[in-house]
Amino acid sequence: MCQCQVACIINVIENYMNRDHLLEQIRKKKSFLCVGLDADSQLLPDVVRQHADPVFAFNKAIIDATAAFAVAFKPNTAFYEARGADGWESLLRTIAYIKEQYPEVMVIADAKRGDIGNTSQLYARAFFEQMQADAVTVAPYMGFDSVAPFLGFKHKWVILLALTSNKGSSDFQYLTTDSQQPFYIEVVKKAIQWAHADQLMFVVGATHPAELAGIRQHAPDYFFLVPGVGAQGGDLAEVAHAGMNSTCGLLVNASRSIIFASSSEDFAEAAATEAQRLQLAMEELLQQKGIL
Amino acid sequence: MCQCQVACIINVIENYMNRDHLLEQIRKKKSFLCVGLDADSQLLPDVVRQHADPVFAFNKAIIDATAAFAVAFKPNTAFYEARGADGWESLLRTIAYIKEQYPEVMVIADAKRGDIGNTSQLYARAFFEQMQADAVTVAPYMGFDSVAPFLGFKHKWVILLALTSNKGSSDFQYLTTDSQQPFYIEVVKKAIQWAHADQLMFVVGATHPAELAGIRQHAPDYFFLVPGVGAQGGDLAEVAHAGMNSTCGLLVNASRSIIFASSSEDFAEAAATEAQRLQLAMEELLQQKGIL
Repeated sequence: MCQCQVACIINVIENYMNRDHLLEQIRKKKSFLCVGLDADSQLLPDVVRQHADPVFAFNKAIIDATAAFAVAFKPNTAFYEARGADGWESLLRTIAYIKEQYPEVMVIADAKRGDIGNTSQLYARAFFEQMQADAVTVAPYMGFDSVAPFLGFKHKWVILLALTSNKGSSDFQYLTTDSQQPFYIEVVKKAIQWAHADQLMFVVGATHPAELAGIRQHAPDYFFLVPGVGAQGGDLAEVAHAGMNSTCGLLVNASRSIIFASSSEDFAEAAATEAQRLQLAMEELLQQKGIL
Repeated sequence: MCQCQVACIINVIENYMNRDHLLEQIRKKKSFLCVGLDADSQLLPDVVRQHADPVFAFNKAIIDATAAFAVAFKPNTAFYEARGADGWESLLRTIAYIKEQYPEVMVIADAKRGDIGNTSQLYARAFFEQMQADAVTVAPYMGFDSVAPFLGFKHKWVILLALTSNKGSSDFQYLTTDSQQPFYIEVVKKAIQWAHADQLMFVVGATHPAELAGIRQHAPDYFFLVPGVGAQGGDLAEVAHAGMNSTCGLLVNASRSIIFASSSEDFAEAAATEAQRLQLAMEELLQQKGIL
């Protein structure tokens, strides 16, 4: 057994999701796909509504159908919070199920939290300890001491918002500072002083491929979590050409285009088909880059 | 009965928390105090631990003891999320209790949320509909379409982070833009184009009184929610001198210094004493300004 495989087994046993393990998964699955588990309870197919926890039943079917093609799952907490305590139960169940059945897949809690230090510490405990997520998305506005508590957890990841995929990203993220840099570059430049590429990633929207290339120059080794492919209109090949580094360095997320590919009984098969379509496109891009 | 009193009764009956009602409460209670319900479950006094929901029992006692001196209560969601689904139940119970017993007091969910439009919409529903909060704190980084869904709720408030009370505020909020303004001023200048002073407030930390005066120049009519008095070291009189406008325009928050004023059986009485001490200081400041 090679050293890499031993390290990988230790990581899985100890429930680590470190950089080596993530790179290993990307090569093994020939994929850098993250499936967004944005299980809007109003959009669930009728077939899952008979279950005691329809959202969990839906997620479970989606997870089973797509885990072979994905290296990460990303539930956005809003879709769970909207249902109060019941929603939190669905989220906890979903993450526990992934950890049990697919411990090799990274779990990203897309929460976009951030608060003063003692409060961020509580969020970090909620997501990393209680929920056992491997990574949390964090908003940068409140600065280092709002991010630091999340970085205090060994083998866990902070994914900091840099340039988001939505239209409103132009309101503040593109403002030019007096050092003639857009604000999102200032965020990246400062944050890479806070943590290495084995603990910090950045959110960079697929809708800005040119800017993605610019951010890659400032953060050559860091992973980027890239939302906005699919329903939001971002293009996978453009993203890969702009943002891929020599070991991949990308997690590309698709949510609605996969999980709501069909609203009929075949929703899980349709999700698998769409996830596999993206995986095959990613395989080709990884081959072109010489990573596979 | 004067017109103002009629309007006030209608507001309470219809569960509105509009600007007139808030100003009326400030004059009536001679206070602009917001009590932060940051009920860290590890810090609760022993006397509440026998209850089925110790956090709610604690909050209920604090609310009953301080409602006479406060115009707003502000639970920070982190302290509830840290306890998962049980924590959400405590939070829902707490807000329901305030709405039932003290409908004249504003409830601010300190959540610092913000996401792409369809996702922010879910957060807005969670806090405004499910939880019945009157206001939610929102992070500005993702721009207009991340804030707009919260503004779509009539008679509800967005409280946007402008200049926060923590040390990390210097990392990004103070960056100078090429129009020679600090970033937090750009946030204020843009956001006042999104909503009027009857639906939008700003978070401005008590630890920056000089900057508070600067923000007041840009947003003369808007309320500021001011955290950082008490445990974080901000000074109430300095805040009032820098930020008060002709109708008050301030909600000054204190959390730990009130709710954890004592860890013994007398915790509620100690909270009331500290809240009243702040209320009396506020009464004097309101009188000095000619508001009372």
